[in-house]
Amino acid sequence: MGGDNAPSIVIDGAAMALDKRRDLSFLIFGDRSLVEPLLKQHPALSAVTELRDTPDRIENETKPSTALRHGRQSSMRLAINAVKEKEAAAVVSAGNTGALMAMSKYVLKTLPGVTRPAICSLLPTKKKPVVMLDLGANVECTANELFQFAVMGEVYSRVMLNNPKPSVALLNVGTEEVKGDDVVRAAAALLRDSTLPIDFCGFVEGTDVSDGVVDVVVTDGFTGNVALKTAEGTASLFTSTLRQLFGSSWRGKIAYLIARPLLHKLRDRFDPRLYNGAMFMGLNGVVVKSHGGTDALGFANAVTVAADLASSHAPEKILDELHTIDAVEVAVGQVG
Amino acid sequence: MGGDNAPSIVIDGAAMALDKRRDLSFLIFGDRSLVEPLLKQHPALSAVTELRDTPDRIENETKPSTALRHGRQSSMRLAINAVKEKEAAAVVSAGNTGALMAMSKYVLKTLPGVTRPAICSLLPTKKKPVVMLDLGANVECTANELFQFAVMGEVYSRVMLNNPKPSVALLNVGTEEVKGDDVVRAAAALLRDSTLPIDFCGFVEGTDVSDGVVDVVVTDGFTGNVALKTAEGTASLFTSTLRQLFGSSWRGKIAYLIARPLLHKLRDRFDPRLYNGAMFMGLNGVVVKSHGGTDALGFANAVTVAADLASSHAPEKILDELHTIDAVEVAVGQVG
Repeated sequence: MGGDNAPSIVIDGAAMALDKRRDLSFLIFGDRSLVEPLLKQHPALSAVTELRDTPDRIENETKPSTALRHGRQSSMRLAINAVKEKEAAAVVSAGNTGALMAMSKYVLKTLPGVTRPAICSLLPTKKKPVVMLDLGANVECTANELFQFAVMGEVYSRVMLNNPKPSVALLNVGTEEVKGDDVVRAAAALLRDSTLPIDFCGFVEGTDVSDGVVDVVVTDGFTGNVALKTAEGTASLFTSTLRQLFGSSWRGKIAYLIARPLLHKLRDRFDPRLYNGAMFMGLNGVVVKSHGGTDALGFANAVTVAADLASSHAPEKILDELHTIDAVEVAVGQVG
Repeated sequence: MGGDNAPSIVIDGAAMALDKRRDLSFLIFGDRSLVEPLLKQHPALSAVTELRDTPDRIENETKPSTALRHGRQSSMRLAINAVKEKEAAAVVSAGNTGALMAMSKYVLKTLPGVTRPAICSLLPTKKKPVVMLDLGANVECTANELFQFAVMGEVYSRVMLNNPKPSVALLNVGTEEVKGDDVVRAAAALLRDSTLPIDFCGFVEGTDVSDGVVDVVVTDGFTGNVALKTAEGTASLFTSTLRQLFGSSWRGKIAYLIARPLLHKLRDRFDPRLYNGAMFMGLNGVVVKSHGGTDALGFANAVTVAADLASSHAPEKILDELHTIDAVEVAVGQVG
């Protein structure tokens, strides 16, 4: 029931995701009177869907603490509960991010060794997409938390993108070791000194992210959120200027007619819908947040991300990795 | 002598700036054997230039502390001294940013009431350019420092861009009052409660910067630097993809031929050289940092920025404003 155009984009999106992955089945939590008529339009989806009538919902403006206290019967909460109860392998929501994070943390708990979950997503670059986290869950982070994010991002890149040896970097204001604040320098020291087989490349700058210099970029949720939205804003500035230039003269209109397939390629290449679906990394279960303003195609992509994460057992693999750290740290502790 | 292509872009850039502003004259600090042959190619510039032979220079890798201690005879230091001695109205350098900041602070001192100077520049948006600071001088800031940056940025927008009532916002991860960390929320409280006639609009997000929602965006140097470089990186990603698409097929090449003037307009609109020239705001004097990798046109723009700041008495106007705060604070203190 969350997001700007629910439940229609959710149902249409689920149907599109099912078209791509025929092994999916759905538990849909929402207001039956609104959802059922939409479901009827998708017989294939209806056949693999169980609809649970939950008229109660979390609004976009609801504070996370209020959602936790008063949202126990909401569609969002019951969907998260279904993951906890192993009725569902993953939950996808286009609703209130803060509430989804708070309830997921409360219900599913963080993985042992993880202090706080991070929001993680793929971003387009000049080369292959980059894994970036945290994109906004934690406005302040300790060095140890950045270290955990690095470990989780590395697993994501390896497991989900099949990078055999992902390169990992911390986002900073310069690449030299002396740059940045105490937290980012301490996190770099932790990663450098770690005996984990992580390919840690030190610091990268804002320009390096979209240049595709590394596979995984780690930062705190404040910087990550600003960077993500700045990139979105710049892309939008570029696109709107391009549209304006091609629309403002006869020459532009003729050039547009000829260049249209190319401009569509450009649009598709950076289509935010194809990057929709951010994982809440570090939880005992798969939780994927769809952009609230996306359409059915975007929501379908978020469903696919969730399905891929669940069927590749991403949380379990992150947990294995974290166990390795524990084992290594214990070993190091014993030696030292 | 600083930057990637000094001294040639410096001399060519000064000549271009002089073409635009005939009231300029120059003190040039650098290695005479390198600078003199270049100057000879520009008779008009030579006529208004005094060249001071300073073979000593600050390298790009030199640490700020080392530059302070051992760079007393460097071209950078002597150029800053010339501002202190009122021989020059402003200093422009394409060299080592950290060294330029450290030496400027040491020689010129900060304005009374300013704890730390900020790096401030204009960025393109969907509407008119936005003033943004801090872009990297201070990786950590207090709420009070963000407040000072807001005051300085507002003056810059009013004095330099002729905005009668510039709108000012703090960069954050969301627009609601509860968003962000303690520092940004405390800075917002200071600005909201201030009796200064600043049009404070609360928080903006990364997307709002390039949408041109406000005239002045204030942030700490870590976030500001990452945001600036992310915007640059995204623009570069877009441009290179566009170039690749137009170059990769016959259709693209034909469309390019027709669209060329439009694509040049696009390029010119976001030409980083036209935004080159960042002011070190909060010093007793005008110090402008040019991008190290720019060309003569970019350097000329930085010179023009410096000349405009000096002839509009920007530091003095910021000082006046800071005096007003002091007066207001004292008055409030007496009332309270």
